Amino acid sequence: MKVSVFRQTHFNAAHRLHNPEWTPEKNKEIFGKCNNPSYHGHNYELIVKVYGEINPVTGFVIDLKVLKDIINEHVLERFDHKNLNIDVEEFKNLNPTAENIAVVIWNILRSKIDSHLELTVRLYETPRNFVEYDGA
Amino acid sequence: MKVSVFRQTHFNAAHRLHNPEWTPEKNKEIFGKCNNPSYHGHNYELIVKVYGEINPVTGFVIDLKVLKDIINEHVLERFDHKNLNIDVEEFKNLNPTAENIAVVIWNILRSKIDSHLELTVRLYETPRNFVEYDGA
Amino acid sequence: MKVSVFRQTHFNAAHRLHNPEWTPEKNKEIFGKCNNPSYHGHNYELIVKVYGEINPVTGFVIDLKVLKDIINEHVLERFDHKNLNIDVEEFKNLNPTAENIAVVIWNILRSKIDSHLELTVRLYETPRNFVEYDGA
Amino acid sequence: MKVSVFRQTHFNAAHRLHNPEWTPEKNKEIFGKCNNPSYHGHNYELIVKVYGEINPVTGFVIDLKVLKDIINEHVLERFDHKNLNIDVEEFKNLNPTAENIAVVIWNILRSKIDSHLELTVRLYETPRNFVEYDGA
Amino acid sequence: MKVSVFRQTHFNAAHRLHNPEWTPEKNKEIFGKCNNPSYHGHNYELIVKVYGEINPVTGFVIDLKVLKDIINEHVLERFDHKNLNIDVEEFKNLNPTAENIAVVIWNILRSKIDSHLELTVRLYETPRNFVEYDGA
Amino acid sequence: MKVSVFRQTHFNAAHRLHNPEWTPEKNKEIFGKCNNPSYHGHNYELIVKVYGEINPVTGFVIDLKVLKDIINEHVLERFDHKNLNIDVEEFKNLNPTAENIAVVIWNILRSKIDSHLELTVRLYETPRNFVEYDGA
Repeated sequence: MKVSVFRQTHFNAAHRLHNPEWTPEKNKEIFGKCNNPSYHGHNYELIVKVYGEINPVTGFVIDLKVLKDIINEHVLERFDHKNLNIDVEEFKNLNPTAENIAVVIWNILRSKIDSHLELTVRLYETPRNFVEYDGA
Repeated sequence: MKVSVFRQTHFNAAHRLHNPEWTPEKNKEIFGKCNNPSYHGHNYELIVKVYGEINPVTGFVIDLKVLKDIINEHVLERFDHKNLNIDVEEFKNLNPTAENIAVVIWNILRSKIDSHLELTVRLYETPRNFVEYDGA
Repeated sequence: MKVSVFRQTHFNAAHRLHNPEWTPEKNKEIFGKCNNPSYHGHNYELIVKVYGEINPVTGFVIDLKVLKDIINEHVLERFDHKNLNIDVEEFKNLNPTAENIAVVIWNILRSKIDSHLELTVRLYETPRNFVEYDGA
Repeated sequence: MKVSVFRQTHFNAAHRLHNPEWTPEKNKEIFGKCNNPSYHGHNYELIVKVYGEINPVTGFVIDLKVLKDIINEHVLERFDHKNLNIDVEEFKNLNPTAENIAVVIWNILRSKIDSHLELTVRLYETPRNFVEYDGA
Repeated sequence: MKVSVFRQTHFNAAHRLHNPEWTPEKNKEIFGKCNNPSYHGHNYELIVKVYGEINPVTGFVIDLKVLKDIINEHVLERFDHKNLNIDVEEFKNLNPTAENIAVVIWNILRSKIDSHLELTVRLYETPRNFVEYDGA
Repeated sequence: MKVSVFRQTHFNAAHRLHNPEWTPEKNKEIFGKCNNPSYHGHNYELIVKVYGEINPVTGFVIDLKVLKDIINEHVLERFDHKNLNIDVEEFKNLNPTAENIAVVIWNILRSKIDSHLELTVRLYETPRNFVEYDGA
């Protein structure tokens, strides 16, 4: 029996949407208030979904304490209370849109979770704007 | 990389469930309190999901401001603070169940969003009763 | 020891804001979309707060099952899946604003709950617009 | 047109994670605080999803009142305000992890819902830890 | 300037409502399903409110990290993943109703927080049933 | 009859906690991760409460559209998608803790709302950390 297991967590970060190849006017036109050069920020809510067989000995697909520790060490330690554009290596040359943040987090977690488990990442930038990525 | 992008919004509307080909007794039996001839209403929460490739120049699947404007103009302007049975053309001859409202909204939005983007509509009639339609 | 006890419940209703002594233009100017003559509606969330001494024998201020039954019988039976303007006696000559609905519900409940218990009613018309009345 | 219909409900239960074939030390190591021999508990939130064709006569995939009654009779009556390990037959020899509870509920409901309708069960053990099972 | 500061946290616990001086029938009549001798449980949400002057040097009424540590050490360590009736000293002879749990938590915290700060405790037993105590 | 009316809204901002009279070590010790010199951010949720008599002609304490416009013009235009430390005048010499932000917003709104109406501001920095100020 294959079950999806979800763990929701969060991090608070500053960011700015910006394309350095565009003029300031073009950046303002496309990214609007999100282009503010002094940054703004969000309480990001992150839901990590892991899909696989139930281990009949434990009754777990994955021990949620283990999953929580992986997320804490590899995502929250690097993203929480940070400025994504300045402090997080992956966004030095990548615009930190919700889409791109979700892909970056998925890539980080994919290498830490057993490959026979499927992985999906959902990221809420606000309660009304969110994205989901499953490696497709 | 293909990502799902979600935009949640809401509208407040009155409606009534009713099949004009049935007797009042049959309507009462099937639709219960929802058949009240003077209507009742809901705060509908609408989540529109768009799935497609990330544009590498913007980092967006779709600009959420653009998506928001499409929803506002084509759905909220016509549904918000309305009586669905009386004020909305599509329900003149269609029972405004949550299922049918979701299909109507999907059809409206499908014609306004690029065809290479997949579209799914989730509609909450109450926090505990909701539906989802993806054109299947 | 005096404790506040809260019970949250909900009802779905249609309504319309309207002052019959005004012109249609004045009604439209003041009440905007809420003046739609064919009504709109809401999922109202109702929180009833009762404040008083803990009964040392039961450990209750008030048995929440009893409070729930009072709310069901005297409020929900009369308000749920109704049109407030048409179906609820109290709004025949009273504009069903959130403020007035809260006062009406408070008056209904005040007569059903022991007078040594203090009563407050909070009513959410939407998750972002709400009111509270305590008999002051 | 095929639509998913969701009904969310809840039950409050005690449970304990435990593998009787392990030593107390091994149980403590794997299940941590969840192994407490005097039990702990949760407000479980249950979302039942039913997917199928809209009935053109009613506008329903399934009458949510019917679905609600099925869930009440076959799940809530047996799980709500219970100790899952002690009071619920299915967990006499099955560890009541969220994964296993979801599978048990899915099996119960599968036999009560028309086979042409697809069924998925989502179970929140806490707002941040949840699972989903669709019979796969 | 006096400001209220709130910290919300949670614990998962089993409990049973029971008055040992009553017959089983009387207990069943008053406490209903909550009297189940094998216990049931809840995800309790706890909101601690501290009211006092803003410290002009820090801009804090109380450092929320300090408040969080106090709640963790003195409440969560003792209540989380426990059976309140069996594992928590204060309920050996006190019925663990939401009202009594809130008073017990308030008394625990009152002795750990500076006396010039006012203290209020709100406890959600479920999202719809909750209580509040401020020492009155 | 006096009723409280609440309007909830939100803004997304970056900020940093810092006391320029302290050493970097002291700032790090007291403000921890919140002292990050490149900033972090939040989705702030703001609830404005206005308390006063119901106007018998409109049924309103205050027209929520008017209150919404006041909040938009005087708070959101200045705080949303901004860096509080850099972009908002009031925090040039004031540490933008949740407490201080609430006081600043209260002072802004107090001058825009009729003085016979009482005003309270609640500000959520995260869903679990929040503050409230009523001018006391």
